[in-house]
Amino acid sequence: MNPVTPAHADSLRALLSPDRVLTSDEDILPYSFDGTAALKVKPGAVVFPKTSEEVAACVKLAREADIPVVTRGSGTGLSGGSVPILGCLVICLTQMDQILELDEKNLTLKAQCGVITKEIDDLAAKSGLFYPPDPGSMKISTIGGNVAENSGGLRGLKYGVTRDYVMGVQVVLPDGTLTWLGNKCVKDVAGYSMKDLFIGSEGTLGIITEVLIKLLPRPQSRKTLLALYDRMEAAAETISAIIAAKIIPCTLEFLDRTTVQCVEDYAKIGLPTDVEALVLMETDGHPAVVREEAEQMMQLARAHGARDVLVAADEAEGARLASARRNAFSALARVMPTTILEDVTVPRTELAHMVGFIRACAERHQVRVGTFGHLGDGNLHPTFLTNERDHEEMHRVEAALEEIVNETLRLGGTVTGEHGVGLAKKAFVRRQLGEGSYELMRSIKRALDPQSLLNPGKIFDL
Amino acid sequence: MNPVTPAHADSLRALLSPDRVLTSDEDILPYSFDGTAALKVKPGAVVFPKTSEEVAACVKLAREADIPVVTRGSGTGLSGGSVPILGCLVICLTQMDQILELDEKNLTLKAQCGVITKEIDDLAAKSGLFYPPDPGSMKISTIGGNVAENSGGLRGLKYGVTRDYVMGVQVVLPDGTLTWLGNKCVKDVAGYSMKDLFIGSEGTLGIITEVLIKLLPRPQSRKTLLALYDRMEAAAETISAIIAAKIIPCTLEFLDRTTVQCVEDYAKIGLPTDVEALVLMETDGHPAVVREEAEQMMQLARAHGARDVLVAADEAEGARLASARRNAFSALARVMPTTILEDVTVPRTELAHMVGFIRACAERHQVRVGTFGHLGDGNLHPTFLTNERDHEEMHRVEAALEEIVNETLRLGGTVTGEHGVGLAKKAFVRRQLGEGSYELMRSIKRALDPQSLLNPGKIFDL
Repeated sequence: MNPVTPAHADSLRALLSPDRVLTSDEDILPYSFDGTAALKVKPGAVVFPKTSEEVAACVKLAREADIPVVTRGSGTGLSGGSVPILGCLVICLTQMDQILELDEKNLTLKAQCGVITKEIDDLAAKSGLFYPPDPGSMKISTIGGNVAENSGGLRGLKYGVTRDYVMGVQVVLPDGTLTWLGNKCVKDVAGYSMKDLFIGSEGTLGIITEVLIKLLPRPQSRKTLLALYDRMEAAAETISAIIAAKIIPCTLEFLDRTTVQCVEDYAKIGLPTDVEALVLMETDGHPAVVREEAEQMMQLARAHGARDVLVAADEAEGARLASARRNAFSALARVMPTTILEDVTVPRTELAHMVGFIRACAERHQVRVGTFGHLGDGNLHPTFLTNERDHEEMHRVEAALEEIVNETLRLGGTVTGEHGVGLAKKAFVRRQLGEGSYELMRSIKRALDPQSLLNPGKIFDL
Repeated sequence: MNPVTPAHADSLRALLSPDRVLTSDEDILPYSFDGTAALKVKPGAVVFPKTSEEVAACVKLAREADIPVVTRGSGTGLSGGSVPILGCLVICLTQMDQILELDEKNLTLKAQCGVITKEIDDLAAKSGLFYPPDPGSMKISTIGGNVAENSGGLRGLKYGVTRDYVMGVQVVLPDGTLTWLGNKCVKDVAGYSMKDLFIGSEGTLGIITEVLIKLLPRPQSRKTLLALYDRMEAAAETISAIIAAKIIPCTLEFLDRTTVQCVEDYAKIGLPTDVEALVLMETDGHPAVVREEAEQMMQLARAHGARDVLVAADEAEGARLASARRNAFSALARVMPTTILEDVTVPRTELAHMVGFIRACAERHQVRVGTFGHLGDGNLHPTFLTNERDHEEMHRVEAALEEIVNETLRLGGTVTGEHGVGLAKKAFVRRQLGEGSYELMRSIKRALDPQSLLNPGKIFDL
């Protein structure tokens, strides 16, 4: 594999335009890292195509010169998926930012990959429609990045994740071929589901240039509750009782004591800082159903030992309560120089056990961890508050992480629920998947990208 | 590739047991065809494994002897996907019929591949849970076959298809490796979604031996309506108006005049036989919402020109009205010796146009076609009533089919919405997918099954 040379940069400038090719140190610095702690590598050049054809042309040029390519949207990723390879070509897709079509009759939306995710839901909302996936980064992350990472969000249990809303993707393959996979048909079984292979492939198999998204009617109403617990087990029992009552809320989020304390320090919402668990619950849909489910959830929370249950009177108060959860990561991130955000996920029934395990593990290794996450879908974000310059502490963090991963896998869980593998989880994937499944994945990469041109070294080594 | 020899059959008998290996002509005859018209090929042997390990052992034996393998469930497929290769080994999975686990807390069910689909929903129903996909064959088809074909059904618009309910599959790969893909986590982005590659791969990449299924809470109530129209366009306008009103019914099915006449002849439901279109609508969910939506749908049907709207007073009457649709294929199948059931799907907005095109096309070629299908998801089943021995008429049928496929593709549709490609749609897939996407699919097959051991010649030729 070769680095980008000045001659390559000139070819790229001729292909795009001079202002859309960056090569100087100060220009490319912002593209040498993403949202992941402690990972930084300098690329050789950063280009900003505006069309799918320009992306294909860049890939062909890189292929002929054997230059590795790393794709990038807004760079909000938390697993190092868009961290460059030294000297590589970074294709930054933020200028491919056009929404191409809103088809209200077929409930679909077509957009270039660089459109900000929230803009899609905002436009849908104007027509009474709804794009449910809401990753924490949705105000700044791109839809193409969301699709490449198969991003989750706070509504996984009821509405699923990004994959569930992708009807089609236009991709540039490693050989520069531009092709559409999928269409507007609600049912289609003509051949393998190639789009599903690219969703969540983290830029290792192709570059997603356009997406065709499925929309839903927007829920007519929503109700927000906040339940406070002195014991995590009581919170978990409430969730089980809600599911047993055949209620599927759109949101079931929780914060542990450390996280609540940091949030209250940061956002002054007025939360009691002595609770063991704070659970945010939301139900949405038809007003009659929402009223009924909110009432049931309140009663179930009380019956299962909630110290207090706050019910938002209106949307504004609901948003205020929800801000406790929305602020969790920012609140934790300001405590210490380095924040390592984990993403383990277990079957929902194992959640209370897992939260307890994480707490005990942190105590054992004397590291500071705040845990928050998605109770409805078993996705936990234990967040290590540390300092990457304190090598001794970092060793303890790593030891704690190793134990958390082992316990996750023992419970039938996954090392990443929504952040992706990238570089950060690479060491654990083989153990999770087992040899057969792991080798299967690598054989797909070899077949589609024999030169290992796209995002080499991410997810696995070949 | 080699046929099964008596020596191979002996090895298979040693591997399983003598009563689970069939080789005599009269024994294997029932396994030489599936539900597809006019396709019949004699296999060399038919085996009935009971465990995943036995399936893996059979695949290893076939691999070493270079014998092609065709997998089969109940053989209800409509695209020739389980029609044997001459002299091949048929692995029939109907004896792998155990439901392994119902996990009410995680809303999952684990089953061997040979379990009848309806048994899964019946068991779920006992716990107030719901398995939504309902292919027409669900009383006799197997869940493994449904997953391998990514079967649809009558609830696609609201509930999606089989793929949307598969959390994991256990597969035997072409080299005999047995591996699980997926798990009970609602969110999981650890690597490529390998399970999605196998769902809908029609037995060409691996053999699905166990499945992990996602369940939903069972809807509390349901309401059925039947609207009768003198013009197809009016029916289509009703559907558009329902979607515009932000209602997503669980069922929106239609029958054309020919189909209504055949159904009435067959089932004597009391339908008027002079209507141009009959539309079955169902809404399910919370009783308050169901009442409201049923009322709205009735008014929208009347406002858009329905001659009459029948509203079922209760579940029993609802079932009677729904039987008009459930009987459509059986009613058409008894009219002529040969029934060719097509499966084209277009974006929903193109439905009225497509139905008109099919009618005009049938007239132009002087062939008899009854059309029924899924208005909500754009999936149409134009059904040719013909006689395969009448070669002259069969030529006209083929010419009409060709035109229907061309029009489908022009409208951005698919040649198969839910029946699969198999042998029946092979000629059309390349045209639909385009060169890039088609070659991508073939490169996957080559990577996973270089010997072309599993279901060779289905979907595409290598």
